Amino acid sequence: MVRHVTLPRSETWCLPGARVEDVQTRVPEVVEQHPTASAIVVHVGSNDIRLQQSEKLKSDFTSLIQTILATGKKCIVSGPIPSACFSDMQFSRIRQLHAWLVGYCSRERVPFVDNFGSFWRRRSLFARDGRHLNRAGASLLASNLELALEAHHTPR
Amino acid sequence: MVRHVTLPRSETWCLPGARVEDVQTRVPEVVEQHPTASAIVVHVGSNDIRLQQSEKLKSDFTSLIQTILATGKKCIVSGPIPSACFSDMQFSRIRQLHAWLVGYCSRERVPFVDNFGSFWRRRSLFARDGRHLNRAGASLLASNLELALEAHHTPR
Repeated sequence: MVRHVTLPRSETWCLPGARVEDVQTRVPEVVEQHPTASAIVVHVGSNDIRLQQSEKLKSDFTSLIQTILATGKKCIVSGPIPSACFSDMQFSRIRQLHAWLVGYCSRERVPFVDNFGSFWRRRSLFARDGRHLNRAGASLLASNLELALEAHHTPR
Repeated sequence: MVRHVTLPRSETWCLPGARVEDVQTRVPEVVEQHPTASAIVVHVGSNDIRLQQSEKLKSDFTSLIQTILATGKKCIVSGPIPSACFSDMQFSRIRQLHAWLVGYCSRERVPFVDNFGSFWRRRSLFARDGRHLNRAGASLLASNLELALEAHHTPR
């Protein structure tokens, strides 16, 4: 769950505890409510990491991305954040998810926002629970997303 | 110039003060000396920012990337780093270069390593001159590159 992330000319939906398939089921609703929006940015995945089903997670992401693309909107994937509280096992899993997403998004020409290096080993960007971002962390995530949105609207 | 960046199964060439076109002229030499290398990662651009010729810089990057691709090797672009010593003008220029590179690499399906968020406002990753990376900065850059190399060799 990511709070306090605001971007110009955008609306943020926050779904506490949502997993990838939960976000997918909400896509039609989002599209219906925002018919003129040109792009949907998704930031999800950390809640799925705990479930240890990496093949299902890849399949869920594939479905989510294809569902968004089928609406005719641009899909932008905001990459996973290595939480300060992750165990070695969880860290390894999120790194694998990141690597897979980079490759998949590249092949599908879906813009991918790389958050890995920005948050890696930076405890000061997380809330006390080490899991959620604090204001500084949310601000950095917003900055990464804004830069990506700008980059993908840059003239040739 | 980036020193102290070492990656497994890779060789690092460091060309002090090099600009994009200087790197391009060295491509044939690199390819000749490393016939079995599968990919060339380029990290260059900061030295060009001072020259204030953004259209020439885009043209030089286009030539560099196409020169590498023409050799049959994979080309990976390591994105620009916002130095701690940049003026507002230089920062704005490097941000524009970043945005343009993200778009160009995406269209050409050239893997792009996003270093922007990792180094933004992190004085502690730079040497005293605020321009070159220190050991911690070089280590983070190596980690970003390693993750990207891993990601682009990840099975589907």
